[in-house]
Amino acid sequence: MPYVPKPRRSIWMHGLQSEEPTPEQRAAQARELSQKLGVEVELPPIPRLEDLQLRPPRIRVPDKFASFCFTDTYERALHTKGDRLKEIRGIFENPPDVVAHPSTEDELEAVLEWCLANRYAVIPYGGGSSVVDGVTPPEGWDGIVTIDMDQFDRVLEVDKTSRAARIQAGVYGPHLEDQLRPHGLTLRHYPQSFTMSTLGGWIATRSGGHYATNHTHIDEFVESARMLTPKGWWEARRLPGGGAGPDPNRLVIGSEGILGIITEAWMRVQARPRFRATAGVLFDSWEAGYEATRRIVQAKLWPANLRLLDPLLAHEAAGLDGRHALLIIGFESGEVPQDWLIHQAVAIARDAGGKIDDDEIVISGSGEPTGRTGAVGAWREAFIPRSGAMPPGIGLITGTFETAITWDRWPAFDAALRETALRAMKEICGGGTVNCRFTHVYPDGPAPYYSFTGLYRPGLTHADWMALKTAVSDAIIANGGTITHHHAVGRMHRPWYDRERPEPFAIALRAAKQALDPDGVLNPGVLIDA
Amino acid sequence: MPYVPKPRRSIWMHGLQSEEPTPEQRAAQARELSQKLGVEVELPPIPRLEDLQLRPPRIRVPDKFASFCFTDTYERALHTKGDRLKEIRGIFENPPDVVAHPSTEDELEAVLEWCLANRYAVIPYGGGSSVVDGVTPPEGWDGIVTIDMDQFDRVLEVDKTSRAARIQAGVYGPHLEDQLRPHGLTLRHYPQSFTMSTLGGWIATRSGGHYATNHTHIDEFVESARMLTPKGWWEARRLPGGGAGPDPNRLVIGSEGILGIITEAWMRVQARPRFRATAGVLFDSWEAGYEATRRIVQAKLWPANLRLLDPLLAHEAAGLDGRHALLIIGFESGEVPQDWLIHQAVAIARDAGGKIDDDEIVISGSGEPTGRTGAVGAWREAFIPRSGAMPPGIGLITGTFETAITWDRWPAFDAALRETALRAMKEICGGGTVNCRFTHVYPDGPAPYYSFTGLYRPGLTHADWMALKTAVSDAIIANGGTITHHHAVGRMHRPWYDRERPEPFAIALRAAKQALDPDGVLNPGVLIDA
Repeated sequence: MPYVPKPRRSIWMHGLQSEEPTPEQRAAQARELSQKLGVEVELPPIPRLEDLQLRPPRIRVPDKFASFCFTDTYERALHTKGDRLKEIRGIFENPPDVVAHPSTEDELEAVLEWCLANRYAVIPYGGGSSVVDGVTPPEGWDGIVTIDMDQFDRVLEVDKTSRAARIQAGVYGPHLEDQLRPHGLTLRHYPQSFTMSTLGGWIATRSGGHYATNHTHIDEFVESARMLTPKGWWEARRLPGGGAGPDPNRLVIGSEGILGIITEAWMRVQARPRFRATAGVLFDSWEAGYEATRRIVQAKLWPANLRLLDPLLAHEAAGLDGRHALLIIGFESGEVPQDWLIHQAVAIARDAGGKIDDDEIVISGSGEPTGRTGAVGAWREAFIPRSGAMPPGIGLITGTFETAITWDRWPAFDAALRETALRAMKEICGGGTVNCRFTHVYPDGPAPYYSFTGLYRPGLTHADWMALKTAVSDAIIANGGTITHHHAVGRMHRPWYDRERPEPFAIALRAAKQALDPDGVLNPGVLIDA
Repeated sequence: MPYVPKPRRSIWMHGLQSEEPTPEQRAAQARELSQKLGVEVELPPIPRLEDLQLRPPRIRVPDKFASFCFTDTYERALHTKGDRLKEIRGIFENPPDVVAHPSTEDELEAVLEWCLANRYAVIPYGGGSSVVDGVTPPEGWDGIVTIDMDQFDRVLEVDKTSRAARIQAGVYGPHLEDQLRPHGLTLRHYPQSFTMSTLGGWIATRSGGHYATNHTHIDEFVESARMLTPKGWWEARRLPGGGAGPDPNRLVIGSEGILGIITEAWMRVQARPRFRATAGVLFDSWEAGYEATRRIVQAKLWPANLRLLDPLLAHEAAGLDGRHALLIIGFESGEVPQDWLIHQAVAIARDAGGKIDDDEIVISGSGEPTGRTGAVGAWREAFIPRSGAMPPGIGLITGTFETAITWDRWPAFDAALRETALRAMKEICGGGTVNCRFTHVYPDGPAPYYSFTGLYRPGLTHADWMALKTAVSDAIIANGGTITHHHAVGRMHRPWYDRERPEPFAIALRAAKQALDPDGVLNPGVLIDA
């Protein structure tokens, strides 16, 4: 199978080159920001490929790999994924030497063998949407080969009887769904990065998506993953359930490229939803909202969506008055009408102080989406990422952090995290705001997701941003949370992951890594030091 | 905390000494069997402790451990768990040298250190209900210490807000539920061994129980397990969900004592059911029954029970006519009436050819059980294990095997397994019968559970039984199943487990084991050779 180039992706933002803003749109955005911030904002021009000066590649690609291993500026800049504040100005400090795009398992094996023989660092690469430097080439290696799996982009088999499909790891979300749709099937897993990330990346990083309750992580949708390790192919049997020793898939899931390269997986898929129901319920306070959310999730009705927005976020993203929290409840099914279920959930919400009129419960039996109107629809629009919405590097510290915590510790945890973020912003840039939503909810606790925006202060650097990141991460660990519910560990979260994980597990993981990858070439620096 | 002896357990059967049949009951059972089989059956007497001749202990218990480490015949015979056909005649060939009953983590640490220093094999022991030689002392060791965790039998903390409880590993099922009941909570995990097995055993072996759909294995109920390894304590944070690397709990779950000794776990518990609904639906054929089951489970209504009995089993255990399959559907909730849900499931069943009158759907809102009448109730009675129901060693080869398989392969798989079992019984004992039920069902496939009964033939040995076991196990592996869905691997399933698991996973698990337990003292021979 010959290499087929994909549409060029932007080296400047997530998305395609063709989606980059035009100079006119950039100028308009600068004017808008200037007005909003009350100072003259200049947006640096989008760097042009022909202006980039990369370190020359330190590796010669063997002739036999020439058709799918590249050293040109576009490929190497795109896969650098280093300091974003520098890269949007055209500075790419530690690019990979070679970017490989194998199309077959034979080509992948050959490239991995070549890297092992020469001790090149190997960076397995899906969509490159990591926010934790998960695919960033590490320092200290004489050769770095990034293996972009974008040629592995097909649904290879569909088993309608078992509702499962064998899917290649390099397929992006929309293309995956395009291939399942003709079969009446869907994976129904929507991380926020859906359009810019791949199945293999989701599995390697334990992504979170639809559903927001019951099966939240990709973990439960993996029937069997297939991974190439330096010691051969790791592939468990296709099984609906099993009890033979620790589950081999569970060591692949979350391995973040340090044990091998995932090429495909049998995934559990489902009938496309035909019956849907959505309700947006208002609460007088954040506290009333999360108490209601707890009661609904503990009733085990398993809604497909159960997202709670705090009053600030409900104001900013869903158009509410800033005093009410918004709980979005969604049910869906390919088989069974959802009226009864949503009325049960709404009844619990009302019993806990929630307000919604009966005619605001939207129900559909035709496959039509039900979450596109009112505050719920406004939130959906705000949730879907927009290319280049808020450019970094203009003097605003913005970002997110996410975690999970049990309900008993949640109120104190939330107070501590908000206080920490606000205090840090006060110190770093004079102040700012923080809001919170639940992206996923479990019977034993929520997965809160915080967004922060500091006050405008020109000249802020990556170090300033990192100071805030450090303060909130320290607080997460000190207050009993996890450093990540679904953003993965990568290189950025390592200091806190090292404090979170049990030491004997680290011993076990390190030993497994050393046994499978004795030279430690696979994604060095991620998860654990071998 | 001083050692408190528990009621004495039977060395002859699962259960307590006090539950052993009287000589009169034995005689009556012999008469009944003689009549049934048409030959004179003699039941050997239950061996008396004072008659047993065990190998003298090869280890001297240090004085400081004398209060909780024992070498008497009762303790050592009870924990031998070797060849059952010999043991019911009073022959215990390879007993542990010492049986320890630590009451505290300090005592457990001290015993483990003592074993490590002297290279004694360590057998972590819960209820001893393993059917795969999972707690059987191995040959080739100069000293064997079985650590019975029965003193770790308390619910230590209850977090009603998060619906979680911190529970010690050595607690037996009924005692665990007794301690949760006053809080209005329940674990609601019922393996068939419920009365004779412990939480730690369930976690170590990935037991299967309630629910029969959605969350089937103990795996999903573990919020965080705590395990003592030779390199220290392994304990992940309490988290409702997480995405930081491979889940550390998932390497504890299913580790079968080879990585450490589980002392306690934070478990996800639930409100005691108040609303219940049960239906027993008849089908004209096995095929119609399993097709309906597939459609119900794929509708994701998540019934608490979805058990399908084939016509033979429905006849033998539920009193049906031998031509109909029986599907038992059960729903339950502490919060929400279950009428609508069971009517949805019954509608799907009827649409697939199932027969049930409306007035046979039993619904309760008072907490009263609904599955105690009719064929469903009869099945329930047959399912709960009865002490000494069918004594082994009287010339009947009986037993079970269980697995899991995806729906697409299920019909051919079922045919192959039945044919294999029948052919093997024909060769070994002239014939027999095999029946099947689904113990658990997943959207992508069932977990079938087969029971076989060979024709009576005096003089059959363990080797004959093993020949049948080998034939069906070979067929399971050849036809794509797993050697165990919930009976674990232990020592007995090793040959097939070794063929089932991916080789790189074995490399990883072996390395982890060697790093944590360099002398390989923990449950040697189970899962993997270190």
